[in-house]
Order: sequence, then C-alpha cells, then structure tokens
Amino acid sequence: MSRSGSSGRKVRMGMIGGGEGAFIGAVHRMAAELDGEIELVCGAFSSDPERSRRSGESLYRLTPDRCYADYVTLFEAEAALDAEHRMDFVTIATPNHLHFDAARRAIEAGFHVVCDKPVTHRLEDALALSSLLEGSDCLFCLTHNYTGYPMIREARALVASGALGNLRRADCEYLQGWLSVAEESAGNKQAEWRTDPARSGAAGCFGDIGSHAQNLLEFVTGQRISRLCADLSTWIPGRALDDDGNVLVHLDGGARGVISASQVAVGEENGLELRVYGEKGGLSWSQTEPNSLVLKWPDRSLEVRRTGGPSVSGEATSATRLPSGHPEGYLEAFAVLYRDFARSILARESGDRVRPDVPGIEEGVRGMRFIEGVVASSNQGGVWLNI
Amino acid sequence: MSRSGSSGRKVRMGMIGGGEGAFIGAVHRMAAELDGEIELVCGAFSSDPERSRRSGESLYRLTPDRCYADYVTLFEAEAALDAEHRMDFVTIATPNHLHFDAARRAIEAGFHVVCDKPVTHRLEDALALSSLLEGSDCLFCLTHNYTGYPMIREARALVASGALGNLRRADCEYLQGWLSVAEESAGNKQAEWRTDPARSGAAGCFGDIGSHAQNLLEFVTGQRISRLCADLSTWIPGRALDDDGNVLVHLDGGARGVISASQVAVGEENGLELRVYGEKGGLSWSQTEPNSLVLKWPDRSLEVRRTGGPSVSGEATSATRLPSGHPEGYLEAFAVLYRDFARSILARESGDRVRPDVPGIEEGVRGMRFIEGVVASSNQGGVWLNI
Amino acid sequence: MSRSGSSGRKVRMGMIGGGEGAFIGAVHRMAAELDGEIELVCGAFSSDPERSRRSGESLYRLTPDRCYADYVTLFEAEAALDAEHRMDFVTIATPNHLHFDAARRAIEAGFHVVCDKPVTHRLEDALALSSLLEGSDCLFCLTHNYTGYPMIREARALVASGALGNLRRADCEYLQGWLSVAEESAGNKQAEWRTDPARSGAAGCFGDIGSHAQNLLEFVTGQRISRLCADLSTWIPGRALDDDGNVLVHLDGGARGVISASQVAVGEENGLELRVYGEKGGLSWSQTEPNSLVLKWPDRSLEVRRTGGPSVSGEATSATRLPSGHPEGYLEAFAVLYRDFARSILARESGDRVRPDVPGIEEGVRGMRFIEGVVASSNQGGVWLNI
Amino acid sequence: MSRSGSSGRKVRMGMIGGGEGAFIGAVHRMAAELDGEIELVCGAFSSDPERSRRSGESLYRLTPDRCYADYVTLFEAEAALDAEHRMDFVTIATPNHLHFDAARRAIEAGFHVVCDKPVTHRLEDALALSSLLEGSDCLFCLTHNYTGYPMIREARALVASGALGNLRRADCEYLQGWLSVAEESAGNKQAEWRTDPARSGAAGCFGDIGSHAQNLLEFVTGQRISRLCADLSTWIPGRALDDDGNVLVHLDGGARGVISASQVAVGEENGLELRVYGEKGGLSWSQTEPNSLVLKWPDRSLEVRRTGGPSVSGEATSATRLPSGHPEGYLEAFAVLYRDFARSILARESGDRVRPDVPGIEEGVRGMRFIEGVVASSNQGGVWLNI
Repeated sequence: MSRSGSSGRKVRMGMIGGGEGAFIGAVHRMAAELDGEIELVCGAFSSDPERSRRSGESLYRLTPDRCYADYVTLFEAEAALDAEHRMDFVTIATPNHLHFDAARRAIEAGFHVVCDKPVTHRLEDALALSSLLEGSDCLFCLTHNYTGYPMIREARALVASGALGNLRRADCEYLQGWLSVAEESAGNKQAEWRTDPARSGAAGCFGDIGSHAQNLLEFVTGQRISRLCADLSTWIPGRALDDDGNVLVHLDGGARGVISASQVAVGEENGLELRVYGEKGGLSWSQTEPNSLVLKWPDRSLEVRRTGGPSVSGEATSATRLPSGHPEGYLEAFAVLYRDFARSILARESGDRVRPDVPGIEEGVRGMRFIEGVVASSNQGGVWLNI
Repeated sequence: MSRSGSSGRKVRMGMIGGGEGAFIGAVHRMAAELDGEIELVCGAFSSDPERSRRSGESLYRLTPDRCYADYVTLFEAEAALDAEHRMDFVTIATPNHLHFDAARRAIEAGFHVVCDKPVTHRLEDALALSSLLEGSDCLFCLTHNYTGYPMIREARALVASGALGNLRRADCEYLQGWLSVAEESAGNKQAEWRTDPARSGAAGCFGDIGSHAQNLLEFVTGQRISRLCADLSTWIPGRALDDDGNVLVHLDGGARGVISASQVAVGEENGLELRVYGEKGGLSWSQTEPNSLVLKWPDRSLEVRRTGGPSVSGEATSATRLPSGHPEGYLEAFAVLYRDFARSILARESGDRVRPDVPGIEEGVRGMRFIEGVVASSNQGGVWLNI
Repeated sequence: MSRSGSSGRKVRMGMIGGGEGAFIGAVHRMAAELDGEIELVCGAFSSDPERSRRSGESLYRLTPDRCYADYVTLFEAEAALDAEHRMDFVTIATPNHLHFDAARRAIEAGFHVVCDKPVTHRLEDALALSSLLEGSDCLFCLTHNYTGYPMIREARALVASGALGNLRRADCEYLQGWLSVAEESAGNKQAEWRTDPARSGAAGCFGDIGSHAQNLLEFVTGQRISRLCADLSTWIPGRALDDDGNVLVHLDGGARGVISASQVAVGEENGLELRVYGEKGGLSWSQTEPNSLVLKWPDRSLEVRRTGGPSVSGEATSATRLPSGHPEGYLEAFAVLYRDFARSILARESGDRVRPDVPGIEEGVRGMRFIEGVVASSNQGGVWLNI
Repeated sequence: MSRSGSSGRKVRMGMIGGGEGAFIGAVHRMAAELDGEIELVCGAFSSDPERSRRSGESLYRLTPDRCYADYVTLFEAEAALDAEHRMDFVTIATPNHLHFDAARRAIEAGFHVVCDKPVTHRLEDALALSSLLEGSDCLFCLTHNYTGYPMIREARALVASGALGNLRRADCEYLQGWLSVAEESAGNKQAEWRTDPARSGAAGCFGDIGSHAQNLLEFVTGQRISRLCADLSTWIPGRALDDDGNVLVHLDGGARGVISASQVAVGEENGLELRVYGEKGGLSWSQTEPNSLVLKWPDRSLEVRRTGGPSVSGEATSATRLPSGHPEGYLEAFAVLYRDFARSILARESGDRVRPDVPGIEEGVRGMRFIEGVVASSNQGGVWLNI
C-alpha cells in the first residue's frame, strides 16, 4: 500500500450507476479523484451484474470483488467490511427515478451520499429523504456542480458582501441543442431516460437543466424563488416532457427575473449564463468562459475578475487550484464539491461537525418544488404560483 | 448652389424637436445626411421660439428664416414655398405625446413623415394615424433604427429563406442601466419625460426600449406576437412608470420566447440582444459587436458572418457602405432607414410607388398594441392576453 | 441658401480623386460631412474629365461647374472664386504617386490640405512638402484616421498621464487577407495601383497599412521608432512589392516591440491591433471592437473602458458623439480628424492659430522614413538600421 | 488492493521535485492521475530529505518508505522492488539544471521519463540525452503540455491535411506579467530559479515560455524554425536573464513569422496565442478560451470549431473527454500527454512498440537549439542565425 492510512488518508468512494456508456460516471470519478483526496473503491455500476463487473474493471480498474451486482448488495457487502477498507460514501449517478431508493438505503446503512440532481423523482420523496437525513449522521451532497466554479463563488461572495446593493434583477438560463431532434428514438440512451416521465420525473428539460439554472440563481443571489409563472413547450412530436421553456420568477429577497432552459436551442452546447443586477452594481457570468466574472458599475469602468487573479475573494481562491491564466473547467469545478465533501467526512472523524459548502438536501427539496411548480404553472396555462 | 437640382437632387428634410440638449436631434441629422442624399433645410426645434432659432443656427447651421417657432408655423411656411425649396419630409423627434398631432398635421399638409418610436401616446392615435395615411399619398417611416444594421438584415433574410427551418424559440432583450437612480429628479431632461406618463405614455421602459426589442424580434422572425404575459417592475421610489420587466411571448408563426427590457440594469449601456432558434439552425446577434452574426448549426461548426464579408446576402450588402473590417455602427444603421426613405420619395416623383423597406405605421400600431398589452397584462397580475 | 454664412458657416471642401469605383472618395465625403461642419463643394474626381464630371454629379450631387477636369484647373478656378464660395481646403484621395504634386500646388494656391497616407511617394518629396508648409499659412492633415477612435485617444491620454509608467513593450499589427491571391491581375483597381511601385512607392503592404501601424504605435506611445530590423516577404508570384512582413522596433523613449503587417493573412479583414505595456500597467485595443479599451494592471482586475462610458478622459469624450452603447465605427473616427481640421480653419479666420489635433506633415515625414527604412533593412537581409 | 493488477493495471509513477511550495508538482500529479490510468507511488520531492518525506505524505498521501531522500536513492530503491510494485516511469519536475543528471540516471536504471521543459540546461546535454535514449528501451516525454489541447490537435490535423494550403505566415506568442517587478528579490522561489542562469540556463523568459511558443508553432505547422533574428530585453535592473523579447523566424517549410515572449507584460496571465495563415485559409487559437479554434477562409464565413463539437477531426476527439460545452482546461490538456505516455508503456509490455504522440527528446533538442540560437543572435546585436 503506497497510500498513508492516517489522518491524511484518502476518503473511499463507491458508485451506483455510471457504467459503460454513461458519460457521467467517468465525470464523477475524475472529479472525485482530482485532488488526490478521494479514491473510488467499489461500485454497482449497472443493473446488469455482468455489465457492472465489466465496467468496474475496465473503466475504473477495480477488482471484481468490489464490483457489485446491485446497490442492495453493495451496501450490505461494504457495511460488512472493516472500517479501514469500507467505502465512506456512495455517489448515486443513475437516472432520476432510482435516486430515492438508493439514497434511502445508503443512509440507512450509514453511508454518506453524493447524489446527482434532481434529488428525486417526486417532491414527496425529497421531503422523505430530508427527514431521513435529519435523523442520521450522514452527510449529503447534491451535485449542482456549477456552484464549484471559482467565479461563481466570487459572485456569491460579492452579492453577500452587499457590493451590489439590494438586488433587483436576476436571470439565469441554460440552453442546449442536443435534443432538437428525436434522439430518444435513435438509440441515444441519455436521451431515452431523460425524455421518459417514468425515469426522469415530471419535467424533462426543466428537471435536467432548468433545475441547474434555478439552483445557480439561488446560490449566487442568496434568495429563493417564491413565485413563478411558467411557459413550457415540447417541440418534438411524441416527446412526453418539456424540451424548452421560460419562467418568470420572483425571489423572496425582492429580486425578479427569468429562468430559461432549452434542449432544442440548436447549436447551443451548455449555454449556462447568469446575471444579477443590484442597486449598486451588476455581474454576469457564462460557462463558455467560466474563468471570467464581469462586473458592471454605474460610475466605473467594466471590471473583469479572473480565476486566480487579483481582487478575488477568499471564497474564490479556495476553489482555485492553478495560478491565473491556466484555464480551469468543468471537472475542476465539479471536483470542488467532492473535495469539500471529503474533507467534511474526515472532519467528522475528528469530531468536527462542519458542514461541507456544497448543495445538500435543502437545495434538493427546493429544486423539486421548483420543478413541480414550473410544471403545475405551465399545465394550468401559465398562472402564477407560490412555491 | 453647388448641389444639383435634377433627378439626383438631395431630398429636403425638416425637423420637429431635436433642439439644444436633445441627443436624438443630432442623431437624426447625422443619419439623414450620411449618404449625401438628404439635406436638413428647416425645423421647429423647440417649443420655445428663441431656442428653436438658436438651435437651428448653432446646431444645424440654418438661416433664421427656416427655423420656425412651432410646428404649425413650420407646416404653413414650408407648404407656401415653391417645390424647389420646400421640405419633402419632416422628422418628428419630440417626446412621445406630441407625435400624433405633429404627424397628423404633416400628413394633412402633404408632407412625408419620419417619426420616432413609439409612434404615438395611445393605441387609438396610432390607429387614427393609420387611417389618415391610408387616405393620403404620404410615406411614413418609424425609426426602429436597429432594423438598419446589415447583420439584422442578414438575420431576417436567413430566416425568410427557411435556412433555420420552422422557428421554435425567439428572444430579444434590451438592457440599460442609466435610470438605476432617480435621474428624473436630478435635472436630466431625457429622464424626465421618459418617466412621465403624460409625455411618455402607458409604459416607461417598455415604451422606450421594450418596443424596440418587440419590433426587432418581429422584424427578424417575420412573425408577430399574438399572446403575452408580462411582469413589469418599478424599482425607483416615486417613479410612475415601469423601469424593468419581462414578457413571455407567443408568436403567430408558432415560435415562443421572452422579451426583457430594463433601464435599471446597472452598468448596461444599450444591451440589445437577439436570438432565434429553428428546427435546423439558430442565430444570435448583439449590438455591442453589431457587425457579427453568429449562426449555430446542429452538425456544423459555429459560423460567424460579418458585415461586408463573404456569404452574406444581398439584403445585408445593400445596407453596407464599407468593405468588411471597417466597423459600421449605430449611425450607419440609422442612416439605412433614411436612405431608403429618401429614395422612395424620389421614386414617387418618378411615378414609381415603391414602399421603402423601413418600419412604418403598421409597425407603429403593432408596437402600441404590444405596449398596451404588456401594461394591461402586468396590471392584472401577469395574466396571458391576446394582442 | 438654407445654411448660415456667419461664423457658424460650413467649411468648404474640394476633393482630388475619389471618383467612381474608388471606395475612399465616399469615405472622405461621409467623414467630412458627418458633423455638419463641412460641405463638399467641388472636385477633380478623375483624370478623365468626363468621368470627373459624372462622379461629381452622381456621387456627390455637385453641379457640373464645380466638377473640374483636373486638379490644376481645380486650383485655378477655385482660387478665382470669391471668398464666400471658394473651397477652404482640398482632400487628396489619389494613388500615392500623385500626392506630392497635388499637395504642392494646393499649398502654392493657398489651400489647406487633407492628404491620404502615405504622404508622398518618396521621402524627399515629404521633406520638400514639409519645407513648403513651413513657409505657408496652410494647415495640413494626413489621414491616419485610426487616431480618431475615442479609445485610441483614451490610450494616448493614459500613456501621457504616466498611468502605465515607463513603457517597455509596444506592438502594433495590421493584418488583411484581400491580396492573398493576385487580385491585381484580376481587374481589381485598388489592387493594381497598390502593387505597382510606380504608383504605390517603395513598399506595398508596409506603405499601405504598415505605415498605419507605425503611426498608431507612435501616436499612442508618444515615442518614435529610432531603430528597426525588417523582414518583408512577397508571397504572390510576379508581385513587385511586399505583401507581408515583420519589423522589430526600438522606440526613442526606450520601449521595444514588433510591427507586423500583412495583406495575405487569409480571412483577416482589417485586423488592426495595438498593445502597450509599461512598468505599472498595460493596454490593448482592437479595431474589431473599437469601442473598448482593455487595461491590465498588476494588482487589480482587468478594466474595460468604453466609448462614452465612465472613467474616460476628456480627450476620448471630445472624440465621442453618442452616449455609451451606441457603437461608433470607422467613419466616426475618420470624421474626428475632419472636424478638428475644419474647426482649426475657422479658428484661423478668427485669428486663433490653434493647430488641429490630427496627424500632419511631421507624421508624414516619419511615415516615409519608416517605409524607406523598412525596405532598406529588409533588402539588406534584415539588418538593424537607425531611422 | 482495490485496483486490478492485470492488463488494465494502473501505470506507476514516481516524481523528482514537486515538493511543498512547488506549484508544478501538484499539476503533474493531477494531470497524471486524471484518467485513472496512472498512480503516483513514490518520489524524491525535495533535496531536503525531511521535506521530501513530508511532501510525499501530506501532498501525495504516500507512505514514508516511498518518499526518498534524493533521486539517486529513488532509482536504487525502486529498481530493487519487484515488478508488481516498482514505478514504471519518473517525472522530473525540478529546476532546469537538474534535468539532465536525473534523466540520465533514470534511463540508466531503466525507467521511462517524463521531463519538464526545457529538456536540459545546455544543448550539449540534450544531445547526450538523445544518444542515451537511442541506445535504451526507455520512453521519453517532454511536457510541452499545450500540445495536449484538443483544438491544438485540431489545428495540427488541419494543417497536415492541406486544408490551409502552403503556409505563409505563422506567429506564436506567450505573454506573462508576473515578473514585471523583481519577484526574485522578494522571496518568490519560482522567480528565483527562473532568473538564475545557474539553474535556468542561457535564457530566462525564452527558456521558460519562449520555448513553449516555439514548440507549439512547430507542432502545429509541422515545420521547423531554420533561421532566426532575436531581440531580447531585460527590463528589471539586476536581473541576469532576458524577461522579454521578439524573434523573427523562418521555417523550413517556407513559412515566416514572429515568436514573442514576455514575463513583464503587466496584467497578462498566460497569454499563449497562435495563428497560422496559408494560401487557402488561416487559423487562430488562444489559451484564454482554449476550446475554440477560429478558422478563416477567403470566401466563406468565419468558422469556429469547438472541443467536442461537430466537424472536428479524430485527433481532436481523442484528446477530448467531455461532450462539447463542458469546458476543458489546462489540466485536461496536460493529462492527454500523460495518458498517451502511460498507454505506450503498457503497449510495450504487450510487445507493441508504439511511440506516444507526445513531444520527446527530438523536440527537446530543437528547443535547446532555439534557446541557444535566440540568445546568440540577440547577444550579437540581433543578427540572423541558422539553427
């Protein structure tokens, strides 16, 4: 064993889902291991036992004994291992409809949980999970990974500092184009489950990426959407869920704005954009160039803060690995969540009950309220609803 | 006289408003005269006769006899001149509440009209003007000047050609920050009348710039907004009209989207941005770099068309004066409208009844329907209305 | 006459060259007349008398009596007019080899001169012109038009203020692609004379646009190139002059850098870019988005100053016509030179001998020294020469 | 052991240098481990044994027995381990002057080598290393990490395909600002050795980053610099090596251009920019937004290819991990080199003698020739030299 087993030990991770053909599994593995503080040690990578084993060996270089046939077995077997080898937490990277049961069982078995968003299939499951977590010692991280970008942390810090004054306008949009044709009928697995109400939930585009936009807006503004009016569309004939939409939102701190999301915006990749305007200043950020945060002032020049650059806050710096000018990207932002989570796990071992600075079950519940609110508003013809 | 008086003659322009301190008067003069086909010959530049004369002499180098005390006198005096000297058309560059009466009298006196937007103070006046124009020989141009940008013409041509397929999503926003404090209480004349219902009309921000966004969206898509749901805000205490808002829109050709406008988006200059997505492709344009049009395709690289560059349509080319790489801006776009208008006036003299390719009274009526619809929807709590 | 003949009179302009097919004639006319302070009244637009008359009437709407057969006639006839009608200055917009004789005769006839760059065909002619001007009352403007951009004025003011500290590095490049094939053999008149030593001079690309880069670098830094080492290339077989090259330069204030120019950089439009670094800060500017000036500081965020925006100097403001966010472009920058020139002419009439803030004969001489130095260095195999 | 020991085994890595305070050690570890195919197992992280052990434990979570006191011990101890545990290759991440001896000993001990650039302190050492490698079975990778960006691979493929035609102009620049003050006198370790001839070599800025620019230019063009003329500067009093400079270059395939580098360009982060123009097209790339490659065509719109996007070549795709729109950055590019290297090591075990597609000793020798040529040219007053 080349790794130290002491306080500086690597935190041990298991994974559910993320097998062959699932883009997100490799992302979780790379993000988790990036900082050298986490090690993937086991998983149930597929509902097909053979496929699970094969994925574990070829994708993740695990030995067959730690590649389980299903997550029930995973929890049992890992719980039976001694504390030196047992996984510390499990990442749930399955389609949405499986999140709840997997998370519930993980918590019941005493494992910390990292879960893909949206947290569950239905709001009531999210609430049930919230209750379960309250009564447990388990940490929970919801992978709203965009919150890990240094310049998003900077934006949050700036708003919190009052530098922008009371907020007036806050918009977030997330536009993709990959579902502008019926990919789900062309054998695209990613498209299949995302457009299937049984696996995705009440919303399609708004469950998948609209909820990211909602989360990011709330994360940066520190305010919560309290009222909304939604106009969802489904452009592809035969598709059962929304693939585009716009939502007017009012936040509980007084700001107002729009959340837009689309998966039929042809040619858009991951057009996640945020902007916030307060009494004293504004900011804008785009994932296309995630290392810049543009600040707008009434009486000063435009200002561009940069990852690792001068003037940035400690919050941004702590999410930064490289000197300025070495572009950090999606994986690095994602890894910020994993790192915080792993450190909180180790801190718990030392008796420190610090909460990781990552989205958790509360954000999960809010996301489900948003998704269900958006769908309800739109289904009623675009009425205003409180959420 | 150094100028030719024959068929190649310059078209003669008068102006109402645009006196000292009014930014827009100089803009009209520069735009009108840019192509050397129009000459400002007279005006009633202010409601104060002395100020009108002074403005005409110092700003526009006119002789006092063509600087009139008011527009009633202007029309009378100019109508009395011989055809060789009489103005051909009048530009109305006053606050909104004066548009109708000035336009009405101009038409009754037989002069062609260029009018600032929004066309009138109230929808019913716009309809009255429309009737008046139908029974006259007068040409009418509404200065939705952004339609003159070459790359906006390119966008319209591209949509019309079917290259994007049936449209799905279409958004336009216009964000400014200059009214983020109570400029109207600090002696800013521009701010004063724009925030005064008696002079501006039913809407503030949406009358001033939201209507530009609506017009541009309809111009490029070739579709008309048929339904909307609006959420207007007023952020400055004591201000009587909206200074920010968002509107969900459905277009009659099937597309859906959002129109946003703000005058309290701190640090924004004239953030006019447009994007359109169809089945086969998308486009985006921003006034900040108006000479680029970004095209997005599902299966090809991003494409950037440029003013004067390769691949652009004849429609864009005819709105372009310089070889590619010589940036054209706001005045050049504005001048495209004036040039088309002037040529149509000369064409009429030759018996050709071509209509200028500029927004006219129809767009004016549509703009008023939009403004009144937006205000009504918002006042009723953000309900959906047909317009 | 609708125009005032008093102190607020329009300055009267004549033009040599700029007839049908010459892009630059229309540019001069638009730039000169933009601010309403200059009026084109006459010209000798072509060496072909009939073509000159036709151009004057159709392009510029002049009466035939002011469209002269050649510039000798122009000067004679205009000099014979009374002071109320006679042109005040002449713009020379011919191929380079004609500049000297036309300018010489203009000065001898007592007319102020606006001249295209490079000022003459040979350095010795530039020096002769300089002597001639010294002994005359004529004003002289060399149309290094890029110096008129507000953000270039801002850059100059910033350097002059010492905000960047002593300069270390200063680079300027101007890349075009339009001569990447043998346009001169395909009937392109612009290409023909620019690639012909008899009409263009010792340099091709460096005479045409390299000299713009040199001028802009000196204008902004306030330093002069004192040493250089040049590497010119000619890529098109049969072309007699350089179409690409790079020059190492040392400036007399201590800064060092590179001047690059190309007309075979395929796909480049007018890629004029400047950057300057001093001990305390740096700046960069690109004509593609001419209304932004990027400032770089060692210990502060990136700063973007904008035409018409906050923080800009009076020098930039006086070159700005529109509120921030209304893009100004090439013509507006060009017009700044004309406006300054026209005002200086009127000031002279009032006895004020203010010099216009425009490039003049001194810059013309420097440009010729640069062009001849670059050619000499390159011809000698890329040796260092003092200029 | 949770990891499989079979053909899918992880490749085992050792490291020399990269201890506490050395930014680059963490970069190597993250880049190497990113794809889950390499595991850091040992190192000699500092010349101070205690510091080496501490770095190994705290930074890399290694057990003390694999944290060696120096690299001589490292090679001995690792060579003595059985084949199942012994490191496969060593990364040399020390200041330049130590590269040669460490690499020599690694090769003599039979270990593959990954080495920071520039490859050695002097050209003759690079040649010696080249001879040593020829006679060995060891693989060698020089971490010109920018060659790992997908869009740089795309650029190389595009040039190689002939799509740009014969190349005419090729420029590369790398501008930083962090040494614009005397950081080396302020306790900055990174600055100290880089400005010290005894540790850095003949060049400062050009050894550190100018060599990256040279390598990138040659990598993408497939041509080699054959002649150059250099103008180096040292701006900080007391600094012994260049901190800024410009080099005119001729490439052996006929292209010409400029290589610029600076560490005193205030406010620049890692401004690595490349552009290439051929007869038929041009390209440009900037590290600031590394996922875009701009293509310029004479008769078509500007084209922007994107990492993971449509139209890109297999070469780019194989260097891409994420779907388009998930920004990949510096670490991901760096990791491409490590992954290729690790796979080649495993391939050798299977008898396949594939060479990794990474810069190697040949590029190292070329880099040293460039560095020494630049210094010689500049020292002789900026003369042209063949290299």
